[in-house]
Amino acid sequence: MEEINQELVPQEPAGKDKGKGDAYDKISIMLYNTEKLEEKHIRLSEVKDYKKLLDDEGAYQLWINLDDDYDESVVESICEIFSIHSLVKEDIIEKGQRPKVEDYEHYVFVVAKMIYYKEDRLTLEQLSFIVGNRYLITFGDEEGDVFDSVRNRLRKEGSLIRREGTDYLLYSLIDSITEGYFNVLETMGEKIDLIEEKVISSKTNEEQKEIRELKKDLLFIHKFSWPLREVTSWLAREESLVLNKSTKVFFDDLSSQLIQVIDTTDTYRELLSGLIEISLSNISYRLNEVMKVLTIISTIFMPLSFIAGVYGMNFKYMPELGSRYGYLITWIVMIVIAAFMVYYFKKKKWF
Amino acid sequence: MEEINQELVPQEPAGKDKGKGDAYDKISIMLYNTEKLEEKHIRLSEVKDYKKLLDDEGAYQLWINLDDDYDESVVESICEIFSIHSLVKEDIIEKGQRPKVEDYEHYVFVVAKMIYYKEDRLTLEQLSFIVGNRYLITFGDEEGDVFDSVRNRLRKEGSLIRREGTDYLLYSLIDSITEGYFNVLETMGEKIDLIEEKVISSKTNEEQKEIRELKKDLLFIHKFSWPLREVTSWLAREESLVLNKSTKVFFDDLSSQLIQVIDTTDTYRELLSGLIEISLSNISYRLNEVMKVLTIISTIFMPLSFIAGVYGMNFKYMPELGSRYGYLITWIVMIVIAAFMVYYFKKKKWF
Amino acid sequence: MEEINQELVPQEPAGKDKGKGDAYDKISIMLYNTEKLEEKHIRLSEVKDYKKLLDDEGAYQLWINLDDDYDESVVESICEIFSIHSLVKEDIIEKGQRPKVEDYEHYVFVVAKMIYYKEDRLTLEQLSFIVGNRYLITFGDEEGDVFDSVRNRLRKEGSLIRREGTDYLLYSLIDSITEGYFNVLETMGEKIDLIEEKVISSKTNEEQKEIRELKKDLLFIHKFSWPLREVTSWLAREESLVLNKSTKVFFDDLSSQLIQVIDTTDTYRELLSGLIEISLSNISYRLNEVMKVLTIISTIFMPLSFIAGVYGMNFKYMPELGSRYGYLITWIVMIVIAAFMVYYFKKKKWF
Amino acid sequence: MEEINQELVPQEPAGKDKGKGDAYDKISIMLYNTEKLEEKHIRLSEVKDYKKLLDDEGAYQLWINLDDDYDESVVESICEIFSIHSLVKEDIIEKGQRPKVEDYEHYVFVVAKMIYYKEDRLTLEQLSFIVGNRYLITFGDEEGDVFDSVRNRLRKEGSLIRREGTDYLLYSLIDSITEGYFNVLETMGEKIDLIEEKVISSKTNEEQKEIRELKKDLLFIHKFSWPLREVTSWLAREESLVLNKSTKVFFDDLSSQLIQVIDTTDTYRELLSGLIEISLSNISYRLNEVMKVLTIISTIFMPLSFIAGVYGMNFKYMPELGSRYGYLITWIVMIVIAAFMVYYFKKKKWF
Amino acid sequence: MEEINQELVPQEPAGKDKGKGDAYDKISIMLYNTEKLEEKHIRLSEVKDYKKLLDDEGAYQLWINLDDDYDESVVESICEIFSIHSLVKEDIIEKGQRPKVEDYEHYVFVVAKMIYYKEDRLTLEQLSFIVGNRYLITFGDEEGDVFDSVRNRLRKEGSLIRREGTDYLLYSLIDSITEGYFNVLETMGEKIDLIEEKVISSKTNEEQKEIRELKKDLLFIHKFSWPLREVTSWLAREESLVLNKSTKVFFDDLSSQLIQVIDTTDTYRELLSGLIEISLSNISYRLNEVMKVLTIISTIFMPLSFIAGVYGMNFKYMPELGSRYGYLITWIVMIVIAAFMVYYFKKKKWF
Repeated sequence: MEEINQELVPQEPAGKDKGKGDAYDKISIMLYNTEKLEEKHIRLSEVKDYKKLLDDEGAYQLWINLDDDYDESVVESICEIFSIHSLVKEDIIEKGQRPKVEDYEHYVFVVAKMIYYKEDRLTLEQLSFIVGNRYLITFGDEEGDVFDSVRNRLRKEGSLIRREGTDYLLYSLIDSITEGYFNVLETMGEKIDLIEEKVISSKTNEEQKEIRELKKDLLFIHKFSWPLREVTSWLAREESLVLNKSTKVFFDDLSSQLIQVIDTTDTYRELLSGLIEISLSNISYRLNEVMKVLTIISTIFMPLSFIAGVYGMNFKYMPELGSRYGYLITWIVMIVIAAFMVYYFKKKKWF
Repeated sequence: MEEINQELVPQEPAGKDKGKGDAYDKISIMLYNTEKLEEKHIRLSEVKDYKKLLDDEGAYQLWINLDDDYDESVVESICEIFSIHSLVKEDIIEKGQRPKVEDYEHYVFVVAKMIYYKEDRLTLEQLSFIVGNRYLITFGDEEGDVFDSVRNRLRKEGSLIRREGTDYLLYSLIDSITEGYFNVLETMGEKIDLIEEKVISSKTNEEQKEIRELKKDLLFIHKFSWPLREVTSWLAREESLVLNKSTKVFFDDLSSQLIQVIDTTDTYRELLSGLIEISLSNISYRLNEVMKVLTIISTIFMPLSFIAGVYGMNFKYMPELGSRYGYLITWIVMIVIAAFMVYYFKKKKWF
Repeated sequence: MEEINQELVPQEPAGKDKGKGDAYDKISIMLYNTEKLEEKHIRLSEVKDYKKLLDDEGAYQLWINLDDDYDESVVESICEIFSIHSLVKEDIIEKGQRPKVEDYEHYVFVVAKMIYYKEDRLTLEQLSFIVGNRYLITFGDEEGDVFDSVRNRLRKEGSLIRREGTDYLLYSLIDSITEGYFNVLETMGEKIDLIEEKVISSKTNEEQKEIRELKKDLLFIHKFSWPLREVTSWLAREESLVLNKSTKVFFDDLSSQLIQVIDTTDTYRELLSGLIEISLSNISYRLNEVMKVLTIISTIFMPLSFIAGVYGMNFKYMPELGSRYGYLITWIVMIVIAAFMVYYFKKKKWF
Repeated sequence: MEEINQELVPQEPAGKDKGKGDAYDKISIMLYNTEKLEEKHIRLSEVKDYKKLLDDEGAYQLWINLDDDYDESVVESICEIFSIHSLVKEDIIEKGQRPKVEDYEHYVFVVAKMIYYKEDRLTLEQLSFIVGNRYLITFGDEEGDVFDSVRNRLRKEGSLIRREGTDYLLYSLIDSITEGYFNVLETMGEKIDLIEEKVISSKTNEEQKEIRELKKDLLFIHKFSWPLREVTSWLAREESLVLNKSTKVFFDDLSSQLIQVIDTTDTYRELLSGLIEISLSNISYRLNEVMKVLTIISTIFMPLSFIAGVYGMNFKYMPELGSRYGYLITWIVMIVIAAFMVYYFKKKKWF
Repeated sequence: MEEINQELVPQEPAGKDKGKGDAYDKISIMLYNTEKLEEKHIRLSEVKDYKKLLDDEGAYQLWINLDDDYDESVVESICEIFSIHSLVKEDIIEKGQRPKVEDYEHYVFVVAKMIYYKEDRLTLEQLSFIVGNRYLITFGDEEGDVFDSVRNRLRKEGSLIRREGTDYLLYSLIDSITEGYFNVLETMGEKIDLIEEKVISSKTNEEQKEIRELKKDLLFIHKFSWPLREVTSWLAREESLVLNKSTKVFFDDLSSQLIQVIDTTDTYRELLSGLIEISLSNISYRLNEVMKVLTIISTIFMPLSFIAGVYGMNFKYMPELGSRYGYLITWIVMIVIAAFMVYYFKKKKWF
């Protein structure tokens, strides 16, 4: 990339110990100050060298990013280099964390959940951040994903993000994540509209499974957006050595955006509950319609069949049978009964 | 308008650069002090001139209003003139904001949602306010709408609004918006009453769709009135350079009015839920009625048809068939059975 | 009334300007100290005279009461005399207020809702109170209603209410209102018991409308008792120039009584929800019963009718038809089938 | 009782003014210090004498207990002797109180609700406590009930309760009451288990009435345990002249026991709601079963009856009728149809 | 075990008074400092000796564990040795406690609930902890269960747990318990997935009983995880003599883990409620299907049977009967009717 002016840490020849499992490809760094930017993949062993640069006069800031499939030993090494608490290390490795923020005096540890649709399925990814004085370590992004827009902004010389500290970089990344939440919610909104149309005209209860799926997804979004909001409002509120006062207003903005996320999930859940109600009511209503048809048919033909049955009896002395107009009169009677029944149901507005 | 005594900023000839896209029609200002009022449409380039007037001795106050369809560049220019934070700018342009208030020391930024019925559909409009020392900038009102009553009050010399600061002007505008909420709720109350009557006498479940629509509308009102109340209670509570203490009591009053709005939406939602319950119960009940008819008919005619069927059999030796009174007795038996059935259902209060 | 010793403000001749619309009948006052009590209807123009008396040495206290159908100008005049804030004036005139309390340094403004059954319908009435130093102004009571018991106590020389300040008078009036809430709840409790009996033995779903009515009423009681409790707890808690410390314990007592009111509405709503559940379950259960009857009848007679139908066929070669005992055997078979069916349903406990 | 060493207040001859309505039997006292205990029934007029003893050097403590059916005058006299506030007096007499605690500087007033099953019905009893410096007055216990265990402990010389102050005595009594709540909940737990078994195997919806009864009972327990917990947590938290610091830990323990009570009522209510759900689902499910039977029977016999009907027609030219094997073939066709239907329903798993 | 270097308290000959009911097997201790570890079963009488060691210079820490089936006297003795408050003693013996923490200045008392699946049934076990200066007493673990992992860590020389105080030991044990909650929830998650599959394809409502069982289990987990979280957050927050500041961060971590537990129970309950909804909707939907079959059959065959019935009548003068093509035409008419019905239902999408 053309913005890189010089390499601050001389790179060892690429072929040397690559393949030794030194996780060469997994660690990418961006070292920058207002003037310079260095961006490359480094080996675990080089991390220490870059850390030293931070104490130099160049006012450099360092962003170390580890891909999703790092192994524990790498996390351990990095935590050692930056003297990170052992609990933090465990939280990074253990994937089932809730979003949270923890203040360890010289650095702040943040866990967040990225959320997106992948092949129409809601997918979660855990991201961990350690933000210290002039360094930010991120764990878990599959390179080229959500963080790319931030990387691009960093590459632009003179951009705000180049001038601000690593806390602003943290804000930018969480902002990216938050945008992901909005995207997911938008997709959901469209899905709900689609289902609504289907439910209203539907003859089956198949939509209920779709509704259930969406409800489950909303449960998960709610589950992770709620604590993420707590994280951002903590970052906007608390005093910490590594958070500049000027960045607080940005986290405050994030916090109010996340309230919007939570609000929207609540609204969506109510809408889905309403759809289930409609779906159930439709089933009941169609049952009613079916039963009306059955009842109308039965009520018309049962008396008629009875009459036919009567004159099918084989009694010897049935005066009507011999009558010249018996058959005709029977038909007339039957038609009158049927007509009366139809009138009755019309009046009752059954059809 | 006759109240305008003189033009404080000499207007350039109208024909000059109009049409150059200087957004001439979109920016309207009202410059006033207790004695004078100037009201006109200005170009973007003139805003700066009016701003300078505020530092003059005339104790002028300035209200700048931008119409709904401003483009980003206009917002940007104005924000630059008044040195507004970039986050504020983004919030103004981005329409999907939640109502909120943010204090930036020298000015306060407020987002609110106006709500009204337009062709029987609930319509939302986002309004943004920047209130600073002696100036108020509003974004998003289609001219001549909710703000007109406030404009009229401003035009009256000696009115309270002319004597008070821009914070009171802000109060007056939010008060207008709040009144809009009440109007919407009133319309809704009438709609609910109408639906209630329909539901009770209804034979279908069509009302449920209407109920659902109303419920959705209430969700939206709730969604925007809640944070608006937070905004007003913030304005009533917090200390700020641009809010006079004497205006706090007015915001407090707004806040308690908005609690009334929220309360009413809650009450309405419970009423609508009750209506759905009634509608569902009606469906069940009508099913019951239908089934009773079917059962009565079946229970009466099945035994009769059976008897008729028996004597329609062609066995050679059926002593009853030859009997002189067989036919008569059969009729009597059938009538007795039918009568008994009718009696039975009467006793069971089925009809 | 015989307690009135002398008239402190000389009354103008009654016939003089009565009928001039000076609202003579609508303003009633009670002026009292521990020793004297004056009680009469006055004109608007006389209010000022009575106000002056309060600054005298007689340690008089003044209760001014305006009837429900005062017009705005009267409220305005009185507010002017006692220099009341314009927001208060508006709140008094505007009827749709939520109960609230507002402290304006030299006086406290209270809005409350009186509630009672009138011809079996829940009725609301808004009452406003302005309590200042040695005066209390009440708006909205139809004379002779809830306040009469308080008036009677005032008339008794030596009573506590005569010895205490206007804040105690305020307490007594709100206490009267609270008692009204309890009366309404008691009536409701009886109604719920009645409906419960009806629902359990009912064959229709008509009770659901009654339940809905009661639920609506409870919503309203809840809506107004909740803020009233906030009012009383405010009065028990906050420091104010016009509230004596010794009166706080009384407002505290009111507050805990209103919690009881709110609690009871909650309990009643759960009871009513339970009743709807029972009513719906009854409908379902009766449907079951109806269907059982239908099924039993069908299941018994369909096979029998089929058999009869078979031997009603006109095939030439049907050996059974010629048999001597064919008819008898057919009957036996049919009875056996019917008996088996009955046994089967008995075993399944269908009847 | 043998622990009574001497009578501290010389008793007037029993026969003297007994029967004068001096409520001789209703007031029982226990006067004790670490060494001595006097326990007897006294007249109202004697209360004053015992009160004087408290100021003596003997470090006596006095527990006065009034039975449930005291009349107002007695309460009034006692309140006068101990200079109790008039609101307290009213709260004692008025039975419909919510549990509460009120601090009147020199004494603390507590209202609690005792709860127990009496002939399988939940019964409430209001108890009031006034605890002052070295005296405790209790109102409302039917002698020999919940307080007996406490009395027995008091009678034991050297017991903790004899050594501690009246605040510990208050704790012991409320502890007794709390135990009553647990007993009631235990009984309820058993009832719920019983109903659950019944509901699952039930054919009717009769259990719903029982469930409703239990739900009502839980509402009442919840209603009174919640404020009682507030009372105990107040007693554990607040500073008061009459509460020793060492007793606070005991009230804290009570408070956490009452949270357990409230928790359990919540759990029980959810269980009961689940039971109603099951009961309703059972009804629906049984309806399904009934309808299946009806449908199977109809679907098998309707086509068969139709065939029989066809060959029961009297057309002159019906070739099948003359056929030698017509009857046989018809039977075969009918059996095939029936078999197919049975196979169809088996495949659909209808039975 | 090889780590035990020497016995600090000389053990009495094993055979001496074993069997005297001195609860020899039930009390196990672990005495350790950074260098040494002694682990054995001791008699009640020896506890005192070990306690004395704590005041020695060896900086020993003592963990005393009592098995589940201790009797009261043992608890009493131990409480006496460590001068524990009598309320604590009662709470240990009484099994129905809610998780809680209580601070008694020189020691902290903690109650927790262990939860696990035993033969597919959720099982609860109450554990009590008394943590004091350099000693921890645990009550209630069946040896070799949850605490074994902690024991193993203790046995490793140089491990963190050996270097930290008894508060860290307490953390480790509660951490073990918390892990148990996660295990249970994982098992539940799998169960829910299984039931979901069953419900969707089910023809009965049997799954509802399983769902109910799971819901009950979730109620219990919720009931005990909630207060446990309060316990851990108390331990993370409050100042106490026996809790080191460095341990607080660990309890904070536990606290956030328990929030995850509670969150998950909530999510699971919503999922289960959704399943019940689906199950009920399935029942309704199947009823619909059943009724459609019945209606189709009835609607087709009733008219046909009626026609057959008509021509089965025995009137003398029925012109159709003599017609050569009467029978054929009748069949055609019947087939047309049937075909029309089938077409009608197809159009209505009934099958």
